[in-house]
Amino acid sequence: MARRRLSDTSHPDTTLDDEYWLRFGELPQPSMRDKIIFLTSEEGATVGPAVFNVASVCDRLGVTHPMVNHYFGGRDSLLAETAFVVYQRYIDSLWKAVRLAPADPRARLRAWMVQQIEGTADLGGWGGILNYPSSSMHISGLLEERYGGDMRRLFETNIIRLGVLIEDSRNNVNTALDQIDVSALRAQFLADPQTMSRAATMAWSTLGVAVWNAGQHLASAGVTELQANKEALIEGHIERMIATILI
Amino acid sequence: MARRRLSDTSHPDTTLDDEYWLRFGELPQPSMRDKIIFLTSEEGATVGPAVFNVASVCDRLGVTHPMVNHYFGGRDSLLAETAFVVYQRYIDSLWKAVRLAPADPRARLRAWMVQQIEGTADLGGWGGILNYPSSSMHISGLLEERYGGDMRRLFETNIIRLGVLIEDSRNNVNTALDQIDVSALRAQFLADPQTMSRAATMAWSTLGVAVWNAGQHLASAGVTELQANKEALIEGHIERMIATILI
Repeated sequence: MARRRLSDTSHPDTTLDDEYWLRFGELPQPSMRDKIIFLTSEEGATVGPAVFNVASVCDRLGVTHPMVNHYFGGRDSLLAETAFVVYQRYIDSLWKAVRLAPADPRARLRAWMVQQIEGTADLGGWGGILNYPSSSMHISGLLEERYGGDMRRLFETNIIRLGVLIEDSRNNVNTALDQIDVSALRAQFLADPQTMSRAATMAWSTLGVAVWNAGQHLASAGVTELQANKEALIEGHIERMIATILI
Repeated sequence: MARRRLSDTSHPDTTLDDEYWLRFGELPQPSMRDKIIFLTSEEGATVGPAVFNVASVCDRLGVTHPMVNHYFGGRDSLLAETAFVVYQRYIDSLWKAVRLAPADPRARLRAWMVQQIEGTADLGGWGGILNYPSSSMHISGLLEERYGGDMRRLFETNIIRLGVLIEDSRNNVNTALDQIDVSALRAQFLADPQTMSRAATMAWSTLGVAVWNAGQHLASAGVTELQANKEALIEGHIERMIATILI
C-alpha cells in the first residue's frame, strides 16, 4: 500500500475508532484537541519527540496543520503539553498498580517498582524528555515553564507516598492511599532525613534499572549474557532493594 | 563584543592554545582531526549534540566546513565518533579514580560510584545519547553500528572490574587493577549469578542517581528541600548501597 500523503486531510485513519480512544480516557469520542494530544502521545513514544512529525497526526485525524497552531500555538507547545499529560498518566499508573497489589506492604512496594520499570519502557521516546531533560532543552524548557509547578506536585505526591510505603514495610502495616494526606505529610517528610534517605535510595535504584531497561543503554545492549539474564537480574535487584530499606 | 561570524575562517579562536589541548591528551598540538573531535566533545557537552553547530567548531579552528566532511563524512559521523571518544574517556575516568583511591576496598568502590556521578554530570549533553539512546536514534544508531563492539568491550571491562571490587569489599582484599584479566574472568563472571546480581544492583543504583543528578530530572529539579539536601542524600545512598552488597 502506498504511504498516505501527509497533506491529505480527506481520508482520516479509520483505525482511530471508539475503541482506540477509550484506551486514553472515558470518552469514545474525545474533543479534537484531546485527540491530537492522545495521538501525539502515541507517535511521540514510538518515534521520539525529536523526529515526531506533526503532519502525520493531522493527516490521520483529517485536520489541517493550522488547526494544531490554533489549539496549541505550535509544534513545541503541543509536545510540551503532551509530555505533561504523559507524565501524569505515568505517575497515575504507579499508584493504580499499588492499589491493585495484594494488601501486603512489601507487595505494594514491589508493585510500585515493577510499574516504574514497565511504565518507563512504555514512555518510549518521552522518557528522554522526562528523565534526561538536559538532552532536549528546547522542549523541556517549555515543559518546565508551563507545567513545572504541576509536575513538582505530582513528583512530591509520588515521593511522599513512596515514603509511606517504605515506612509501612518497616512496620508491617498497610496505609490506605486515600488516607495519605500529602500536603499534611510534606513538611514532616522533608524534615525527616532517614525516611527521605530511604525514599531517595529506592527512587534512584528504581530509576537506574528503569532507564537502563527503557533507554536501551548503548554499551550494554549487545551483551548477550546480560540480556539473557535480564529478567532474573531485575527481579534480584527489586528483592535486594526492598531488603535494603528494611534495615 | 560582536558574535564571530560562523563563516569566518580567518580568525581562529586564540584561546585554543597548547594548554587547552593538553586537557584532552598528551600533545600540545594534536592533529586537526583530533582537534575537531576534542572541540566537538566540549561543545556537544555544553549545548547537547541535537543542537550542536558544526560551523562553530570549524570557525574556532579556522577550517572550512568541507574539512569536516573530508575527515568524517558528515556531521552525524563526527558526532558518533566523538560520542565514542567521550564514552572511552568517561570509563577511563572511573578507573583512574579507583587507582587514586586509598588502598581500601570500600574506598575504591566509593571512588567508582562518586566518579560515575561526577563523570555523568561532566558528560553534559552526551549523557542523553549514551544513557538514553532511544531519545536520539539517528546518532545512537550510527554509534552502535560503528563503535558498538568497542563500547561493549569497554562496558564489559567496567562491569567485570566492578564485580572484582565488590568481591574485594566482601573479602576485605585489594586486587591490583593490572592483575585483573578481564577476558579470563568474563565467562566466570557471566556464569556467577550472585556476583552478577550484586554488580547489576550497584551499577543500576549508581546509574539512577547519576542520571538524576546530571540530567536535571524535570519534575523534581524545583523541589527546594530536595536540592538543599542533595549532597547528604547522595552520600547516604552511596553508604547504603555499599552496605547492601556486603550482605
